[in-house]
Amino acid sequence: MFETHPDSELGSETEILKGKTISPGMVQGIVHVHHSFLDLPDIPPEAISLNDVEKEFSRLNAATTRVSDDLAALVLRVAEEVDSSLAEVFGAHRLILNDPALREELRREITENLVDASTAVRHVFRRWEKRFLLMESQIARDKSDDLRDVSVRLYNALVGITANPLEEIPSGCVLATSRLLPSDTIFLADRSVAAVLLEYGSFGSHFALFAREMALPCISRLSGLSDIHREGALALVDGSTGIVTLRPTCRQIDQFEKKVRTLAKSLGRAQAHAMEPAITRDGVSIAVLANVGFCQDTENAMRNGAEGVGLYRLEQAYLGRLEPPSAEALLADMRQTLAAAKGYSVVVRLLDVGADKPLPFIEFASESNPALGCRGVRILKEYPELLKTQLRAILALSQEYDVRLLIPMVTLAEDVMVVKKHLLALCGELNITTPPQLGAMIETPAAALSARQFAGDVDFLSFGTNDLTQYAFAADRENAAVEPYFNDADEVIFRLMQLTHDDVPEIPLSLCGELAGRPEQVARVLQCGIRTLSVAGPLIPAVKEAIRHSNCLVSAVTKPQRS
Amino acid sequence: MFETHPDSELGSETEILKGKTISPGMVQGIVHVHHSFLDLPDIPPEAISLNDVEKEFSRLNAATTRVSDDLAALVLRVAEEVDSSLAEVFGAHRLILNDPALREELRREITENLVDASTAVRHVFRRWEKRFLLMESQIARDKSDDLRDVSVRLYNALVGITANPLEEIPSGCVLATSRLLPSDTIFLADRSVAAVLLEYGSFGSHFALFAREMALPCISRLSGLSDIHREGALALVDGSTGIVTLRPTCRQIDQFEKKVRTLAKSLGRAQAHAMEPAITRDGVSIAVLANVGFCQDTENAMRNGAEGVGLYRLEQAYLGRLEPPSAEALLADMRQTLAAAKGYSVVVRLLDVGADKPLPFIEFASESNPALGCRGVRILKEYPELLKTQLRAILALSQEYDVRLLIPMVTLAEDVMVVKKHLLALCGELNITTPPQLGAMIETPAAALSARQFAGDVDFLSFGTNDLTQYAFAADRENAAVEPYFNDADEVIFRLMQLTHDDVPEIPLSLCGELAGRPEQVARVLQCGIRTLSVAGPLIPAVKEAIRHSNCLVSAVTKPQRS
Repeated sequence: MFETHPDSELGSETEILKGKTISPGMVQGIVHVHHSFLDLPDIPPEAISLNDVEKEFSRLNAATTRVSDDLAALVLRVAEEVDSSLAEVFGAHRLILNDPALREELRREITENLVDASTAVRHVFRRWEKRFLLMESQIARDKSDDLRDVSVRLYNALVGITANPLEEIPSGCVLATSRLLPSDTIFLADRSVAAVLLEYGSFGSHFALFAREMALPCISRLSGLSDIHREGALALVDGSTGIVTLRPTCRQIDQFEKKVRTLAKSLGRAQAHAMEPAITRDGVSIAVLANVGFCQDTENAMRNGAEGVGLYRLEQAYLGRLEPPSAEALLADMRQTLAAAKGYSVVVRLLDVGADKPLPFIEFASESNPALGCRGVRILKEYPELLKTQLRAILALSQEYDVRLLIPMVTLAEDVMVVKKHLLALCGELNITTPPQLGAMIETPAAALSARQFAGDVDFLSFGTNDLTQYAFAADRENAAVEPYFNDADEVIFRLMQLTHDDVPEIPLSLCGELAGRPEQVARVLQCGIRTLSVAGPLIPAVKEAIRHSNCLVSAVTKPQRS
Repeated sequence: MFETHPDSELGSETEILKGKTISPGMVQGIVHVHHSFLDLPDIPPEAISLNDVEKEFSRLNAATTRVSDDLAALVLRVAEEVDSSLAEVFGAHRLILNDPALREELRREITENLVDASTAVRHVFRRWEKRFLLMESQIARDKSDDLRDVSVRLYNALVGITANPLEEIPSGCVLATSRLLPSDTIFLADRSVAAVLLEYGSFGSHFALFAREMALPCISRLSGLSDIHREGALALVDGSTGIVTLRPTCRQIDQFEKKVRTLAKSLGRAQAHAMEPAITRDGVSIAVLANVGFCQDTENAMRNGAEGVGLYRLEQAYLGRLEPPSAEALLADMRQTLAAAKGYSVVVRLLDVGADKPLPFIEFASESNPALGCRGVRILKEYPELLKTQLRAILALSQEYDVRLLIPMVTLAEDVMVVKKHLLALCGELNITTPPQLGAMIETPAAALSARQFAGDVDFLSFGTNDLTQYAFAADRENAAVEPYFNDADEVIFRLMQLTHDDVPEIPLSLCGELAGRPEQVARVLQCGIRTLSVAGPLIPAVKEAIRHSNCLVSAVTKPQRS
């Protein structure tokens, strides 16, 4: 969808593209069209003589070792710097690369067809990809993407290409490309790209989450982006409207810059008051906390006025490890991550993994719908030792911090009881007389509709609206095909929160889904009885400002105000 | 879990095993322990000489063709006689068998290693299985089961084994085995097995659905079943308690038979009144309709007192076809299936498929959570021609039957609007002044909580509690690991139905999930405002009888009765 504007003043025609914002922000920059490098070159096979077979074997082995080492280093680096589930992608690629059957087939290709190692890589990987496409209509695309990712890496190592084309994109550019694989994200984390324009990519996709976390503006659903004549064009990227203006007129640039200044001013105002409390118009004080995973998150959040940590994701402490951490190691990790929040209250969520976010030391069963499978507390119930180690570390931490404990993916009252039983037993063992407060994540419609069943056993409830929306609407948030069905600001979600509040009005409610970080939704959220919001650090000033313009009581908002 | 009873009177010790009933019923019979045949023999390779290579090629080709033809025939037969999704299993197996890469690797194995075709099958399939297990921790088990299924079939064809061991089980036996693959079901459909005892198998599994449909009693979660000394033992299988008594005492047999007679008497009473209307104690007439897919279902249902068809599943008319049927072909299919219900009202559900139930002529995207993906009306919106053909056929049928139309998997008001728009346009085109009544399936929590949004555009609503439960509890009904989370009789499900009723009290509500077929839940269902139940034909008499013992008004049930 684009219109051309005849009133171009900058040499060539202005184009207006309308897409969907998946990460907000307003910037201008020069377009760099990035063609997906995810293809092996289609060139004739390189023949070798029988004498060269051994040489090609060693080239192949050397390349495999190099790539395998690179991947191992990436797993650690990505887990630390970016995101745990990205790290898993590289871990899986390493497994593919070292698959004995694959290595055997590569060697055989060299011996039998007398081709060089890079030709063998091209042929064998194509064959494997084809097998996946043939045999598994359901999961073929994901898998063949992975195979291609690995094959390109191995091929590049063989022919001496060491850089990913994404590593060479000009600093400060507006990157335009068809789509980004999860694994591309790592290169963008390093580069100072101004914005990303995509043909394909949903709001719930992994890249979108990452972009929002990095405050990198991104607009998706822009068609024909790779059109070469867009290379080098000036682009105004307006995340507030989803509009990209290519080769804008001077007037358009002026208007854009004015809008940017206005927004910056209001953000500046918000930031100036970031450290002050957030009190609604009708005088209710709302706690604004931070979602964190790494120590940088915590530092960033505290600088932005966080009043504590509302969601500490423990997953990061487990990633990149081949064995589960001991209570001591976990405690050390937690101390490091939370250092900047010393003196504040901290909500630690127990490990939340499942078949879609596997760990090497847990045996995950094959699941055709992992989102509807064994995850969150369901896994912890199966692995009580894993649970107890976390509880031990958290209890030790509670001697230094005001710690609360959050149970992920609670669905039945029994989910709370199991954790509470272990918690109280450990408190007894360790002579701790006041156990930390216990909370349940409300992420399933069933939990929202049956809070009375477990309210007596918890001190607070926290809504995870991302998953709650996914289940209420039966729409996988990572699946672009059902994106129109995934709306976490739909009246249904507010109704579920309101029903919970009406059922257990005495229980404090918090919200740590993405919904909490959207200023335009803050008033509606507060009206459901939620009094604590937990969001990514950079969003805190704007959320606090939105609170200051909201009322907690519906009547004050909907009725005409007297004055 | 079993106890031994010392008071044995029949020679050896009585054993009591306690499991979980996944298909009800009470029978006695002789135990036949069935060891899974799903393993290729572990024997040394059969060497051949170079001269024999061509001979082995033709053996392999002949076997492949034979198995491929068998599978093609099975697809059709299973779709017709048993179940559509079972048919798909065999279709997928046929694709694997004919995979060119696999066939090439089999030939290469024969040429290069000079082994016979059956050795090649054993080696190559093992290698492929291993690749799947190595590369895809998430879905490996399902896939490797399929590969094994195919490899055993091909191996047996090569070595001349034509029968499945399940085909040779004694008639009338109580089959005891570790677990059953979906594809095993076909053999049980043919044999008159008295009951099935399993070590593994969940209530929501494919086999469980099948067993309930065939009225075949089945108890699962019985450990140590394959213990050889149980072969030939007399077993009392009590589906009402989940208890299996092996080598019972005479007293136990007497008590069991007495219980069977009592149950038979009450079933007989229900059957004697099957053709009479079902009126509650407080005088409300409840419509009891049938869920059907094939004409046998309809005949069976009408004999059991169905007052019409409450859910006609159109999927069966699409299966086993390589191209979508024309409106004429569809109409012919519908006429045949519904012949026995002529003169009664008939609710036709539009095609309900998705990535987990694929069709060859629809391109399904890869989805990591197909249950949360593009399915039901979401697919129909993407394929308007597919929708329009169905609407044409249904409109033609509406000239002969009292037809209503049901939209599967409604989540948003737009889902109803799209279908209604096409329906009204077609009515205009065909000069039909009274379009058939339109209904929406309520299968997502979001739909249950937002019925007001689309109630104005429908004539009735029908709850699909199987899916509704799956989404509300975030528990895949096919996944045994989360079975404790799947409870379609939980208060949460009744609450969702009650909320819908309270929101749109003027809209007639029906229920066609499995919950409707459980006599002990009927009263609670009616109290939520549901006035139409649609169940499998054989369940109708018992459901009607339960209605006659129920009250629609809660007060009449919970308050002590006067007089």
